[in-house]
Amino acid sequence: MAAYGDATSSSELVSSPDPNHPANLICELCRCFYQLGWVTGTGGGISIRDDQHVYIAPSGVQKERIAPEDIFVMKPDRTFFRKPARPLKHSACTPLFFNAYDLRQAGACIHTHSQHAVMATLLWRGKEFRISHQEMIKGMRVAGTGKALSYLDTLVIPIIENTPDEEDLREGMEQAMKDYPDAPAVLVRRHGLYIWGKDWTSAKGQAECLDYLLEVAVKMRMIGLETEGLPV
Amino acid sequence: MAAYGDATSSSELVSSPDPNHPANLICELCRCFYQLGWVTGTGGGISIRDDQHVYIAPSGVQKERIAPEDIFVMKPDRTFFRKPARPLKHSACTPLFFNAYDLRQAGACIHTHSQHAVMATLLWRGKEFRISHQEMIKGMRVAGTGKALSYLDTLVIPIIENTPDEEDLREGMEQAMKDYPDAPAVLVRRHGLYIWGKDWTSAKGQAECLDYLLEVAVKMRMIGLETEGLPV
Amino acid sequence: MAAYGDATSSSELVSSPDPNHPANLICELCRCFYQLGWVTGTGGGISIRDDQHVYIAPSGVQKERIAPEDIFVMKPDRTFFRKPARPLKHSACTPLFFNAYDLRQAGACIHTHSQHAVMATLLWRGKEFRISHQEMIKGMRVAGTGKALSYLDTLVIPIIENTPDEEDLREGMEQAMKDYPDAPAVLVRRHGLYIWGKDWTSAKGQAECLDYLLEVAVKMRMIGLETEGLPV
Amino acid sequence: MAAYGDATSSSELVSSPDPNHPANLICELCRCFYQLGWVTGTGGGISIRDDQHVYIAPSGVQKERIAPEDIFVMKPDRTFFRKPARPLKHSACTPLFFNAYDLRQAGACIHTHSQHAVMATLLWRGKEFRISHQEMIKGMRVAGTGKALSYLDTLVIPIIENTPDEEDLREGMEQAMKDYPDAPAVLVRRHGLYIWGKDWTSAKGQAECLDYLLEVAVKMRMIGLETEGLPV
Repeated sequence: MAAYGDATSSSELVSSPDPNHPANLICELCRCFYQLGWVTGTGGGISIRDDQHVYIAPSGVQKERIAPEDIFVMKPDRTFFRKPARPLKHSACTPLFFNAYDLRQAGACIHTHSQHAVMATLLWRGKEFRISHQEMIKGMRVAGTGKALSYLDTLVIPIIENTPDEEDLREGMEQAMKDYPDAPAVLVRRHGLYIWGKDWTSAKGQAECLDYLLEVAVKMRMIGLETEGLPV
Repeated sequence: MAAYGDATSSSELVSSPDPNHPANLICELCRCFYQLGWVTGTGGGISIRDDQHVYIAPSGVQKERIAPEDIFVMKPDRTFFRKPARPLKHSACTPLFFNAYDLRQAGACIHTHSQHAVMATLLWRGKEFRISHQEMIKGMRVAGTGKALSYLDTLVIPIIENTPDEEDLREGMEQAMKDYPDAPAVLVRRHGLYIWGKDWTSAKGQAECLDYLLEVAVKMRMIGLETEGLPV
Repeated sequence: MAAYGDATSSSELVSSPDPNHPANLICELCRCFYQLGWVTGTGGGISIRDDQHVYIAPSGVQKERIAPEDIFVMKPDRTFFRKPARPLKHSACTPLFFNAYDLRQAGACIHTHSQHAVMATLLWRGKEFRISHQEMIKGMRVAGTGKALSYLDTLVIPIIENTPDEEDLREGMEQAMKDYPDAPAVLVRRHGLYIWGKDWTSAKGQAECLDYLLEVAVKMRMIGLETEGLPV
Repeated sequence: MAAYGDATSSSELVSSPDPNHPANLICELCRCFYQLGWVTGTGGGISIRDDQHVYIAPSGVQKERIAPEDIFVMKPDRTFFRKPARPLKHSACTPLFFNAYDLRQAGACIHTHSQHAVMATLLWRGKEFRISHQEMIKGMRVAGTGKALSYLDTLVIPIIENTPDEEDLREGMEQAMKDYPDAPAVLVRRHGLYIWGKDWTSAKGQAECLDYLLEVAVKMRMIGLETEGLPV
């Protein structure tokens, strides 16, 4: 497993009695996200970082059943501090998570396969999802890490096209983040979304708000209501 | 934090082994409401009061993860007995909760961001939501704190317009409560609802009944059925 | 509380370490039914009987939070062995549960406010709900306590009109059970349903099958598919 | 119970402190599947096998409440090593599970009554369900046990007609598996689906992906979107 260089398999970096240790949080949050239908079928996940470490879940495993010792720990330079003793591969989303870390100085990034996201990308066939005049917009932040949006703001989320290999989304996501510097998330058509925040609570809170907004938006469009502007 | 005056951070007022202590109840009920989709993304919540104390959750935090020591305790005159040691702000809904306490002598008030409430306010575009001939109407009470409605009563809930700042809803909610003295709740368009009862069990029971009725009503309207009166 | 005659408040009849004791089962099943949306807002419930005792939950309380000491115990002659020490009233559904005991020799009867039941009674505007050619029909039993239905059978459930007082449903339910001797349940329009079985596992299993069938049927009708017979 | 030959009722084969022992897994997974709505009303289930043993749940019981001692253990030649001490019958799905074992060398097979499966078989009235261009397709495997599908592959699942007796599905399922050698599952019209994998994690992961795809597909068709190919 040369790709992991001289990484250790020691449990030291992922073993802690503190429930707020990133390795513990990733496991617990993945169980929550499973209940929400965001990470079923081994898809989706969350990465958390601190100044020195980036914590990454393994690829292709049941996300609701991962344990701290399954977590990879990377350095900010993308080399590995630590890999699990079990023969696991790190999440294919890793380059996407690093987009959030590098371009937005995020402290956590969540990837969901939420059906509301997928349905929204089927109904909004252009390059943007837009919604306004919803209280939950106030739970979103400019660029994901900036100030909170106002009820009077329109939330705009870019939609990129899916690619056969998850890694190949990196460039499209990066371009969308540059084209939409204020967007707090990127939707991937027929796939899901990536969303980030300054820390895991912010990323999770925004993920819940956006998922709610996508669900409401899909319902609105299905009954012929516009999601942007007010009816006259 | 001058706004909290000479409030203490002592845990005394919020620390109790009794699961029915308001500080424990608020935490437990917020976890329940999170499961119901009422308080995701840090929105929504519940306040409980007794003769001497008003218990308020903090603002902008994950409602399903608050602990008793995060709870604010106010006096009926709206000054603070107690604030958390952590640097938290009290819920922006506080003036709205006091509407229920002052105008209806409620013992608890719940604020939800339920999607059924939001969808109902999009489909009922006027100033009222109305439904009749549903068993669950019997779970509602006149003015929230009076006698139970009958199956033969029509439930009428006023709808007020949302405002950019939650505090600014206070006046609109107060006016709606004066205009609709029998209404057990107030809907806020594109936002959610406020509902109260003589105690937390009554507030929660009515919140469940109203949410059920809003969900049924939205389904009925989507398939072309009237929610008021009987078909001829 | 004269209506309870010389009933005791002793815990003896409802206190048991056996999780399958009816008083424990009623509490646990009500928590399950709450998760299913069948008994929110204090509505709905379950009664279980054995040769000597009929166990009844209290009225107007949060069904997911009842404790064994809240359970009423009646004799088959409808007088009370035991009432809770707390000032509670027994379920208003009691006469309806006795319909299942008296007319079908049931061992348990469930009352739900399931939205699927309510929606079905709005879409099936006559006196019967009918569905055929669904595997889940095989989970239903003739008259609720007889032999299992076959995949080739049509399930027919009578629908009665709701009444302002729950007790007043007794007569309508009895008549429907006489008119439809093979029906394993009775739907109550704009209200919910009553369903029974020879014991609690049978009643619960049939309740799940019927709820599933009602949900599928509502979806089918909403997209223009017939629920009885096969398409040609 | 001659059908079980000289099978023992000893607990030895099903009693283990290891949560990954098949007898423990079947019980735990059935509880999960109940939450997902796949095995309500005693329907559905899962079988797991290793080189020497095939583990089968009992028939007609509440799947979310089975205990390890309720599990049947068969030999690969379909005779019984072990039957429960309680008078239970083994799952009527047993011959269907063996289709997966015999024709695909599967290590586990799941049967669900998911409503998404049933609705899909009502909307796809021919002999195949087809979907393409969905990320979750990548969670499926050729023939269930082969290599992963690509985002560019079309997922094709054969649909067979239901029969009054579950055992009689065996032949139809076998024929469909021969006609569609690459299909990772078989849908049964108005009934549910069978899906398998090289082990229980693969079977469960694919079951979640397929259920997700069926749900999305039903929503797409309901709003007039094609599930195969891209819109032009």
